Amino acid sequence: MRLLGLDPGLQKTGWGIVESRGTRLTHIANGVVKSSPKKSLAERLVELHDGITEVITEWQPASCAVEETFVNKNPTSTLKLGQARGIALLVPSMAGISVAEYTPNHVKKSVVGVGHAAKEQVDAMVQVLLPGITINGPDAADALAVAICHAHHMVSMQNMGVLGR
Amino acid sequence: MRLLGLDPGLQKTGWGIVESRGTRLTHIANGVVKSSPKKSLAERLVELHDGITEVITEWQPASCAVEETFVNKNPTSTLKLGQARGIALLVPSMAGISVAEYTPNHVKKSVVGVGHAAKEQVDAMVQVLLPGITINGPDAADALAVAICHAHHMVSMQNMGVLGR
Repeated sequence: MRLLGLDPGLQKTGWGIVESRGTRLTHIANGVVKSSPKKSLAERLVELHDGITEVITEWQPASCAVEETFVNKNPTSTLKLGQARGIALLVPSMAGISVAEYTPNHVKKSVVGVGHAAKEQVDAMVQVLLPGITINGPDAADALAVAICHAHHMVSMQNMGVLGR
Repeated sequence: MRLLGLDPGLQKTGWGIVESRGTRLTHIANGVVKSSPKKSLAERLVELHDGITEVITEWQPASCAVEETFVNKNPTSTLKLGQARGIALLVPSMAGISVAEYTPNHVKKSVVGVGHAAKEQVDAMVQVLLPGITINGPDAADALAVAICHAHHMVSMQNMGVLGR
């Protein structure tokens, strides 16, 4: 099953695709969709929309996951992030792909084993779990972590008999 | 020129359409796009997307305006609003319609004459400026206020020779 993880941001939205077969995890691709700060907010959201659509069209994931956003203390940043996040949730859903949401602690626990791991530990574990891959920056690493978390969750669901194998 | 005003919200996004000819303003339609609280966030954003798309398809506005969101003290509400606002900015922009943004004070000043008017004064002035119309609730009233502000702004731009008549 091919899974897409997204780490939304107005300037950079990270994405990562993994293939999950039983407990085996394979890296497929990762990258970043960028929007131009010189454009209007509405135009930037269209850029994110088009970029995420391209990723879905090219890699055809069967399911998608987005991290539940860390709510920033700065309300202006939170609003910006919310706008980008709206697009990250919309695009796969419009394409008929289910969208799961995981808290940052859930992602950390799933990838590193503890809920309060540092960001660097998460990125390092992504490299361990998907050896030899080139990661296109921290946003793509975070997106791969979300995709891995989603894969682990799917395996648990299968083991519990909630999902078919 | 037909103008669309949007007042974004996850549960209810108000919309209002006015026709602006010189300084004359005519009401065309107003309403509310709702999303179901029982659905997932991604599905709700699709509902907003589809509802706003329907409004644009039916009324064919030439330009659109969205109020710059009042940043709430509650970060969770701000994030929710941001997600809905992302969709409100995306949909017209995807349809090739320019999207203007106005601060709440700009809207109030344009509609009531003062920047710190109460919400009730704004709604009452919308009724005065567009006499005899039925407004579908406070969110539609706010959306009409944004559309009126956008119309006033367009007239000023024309008077200054920035836009053609």
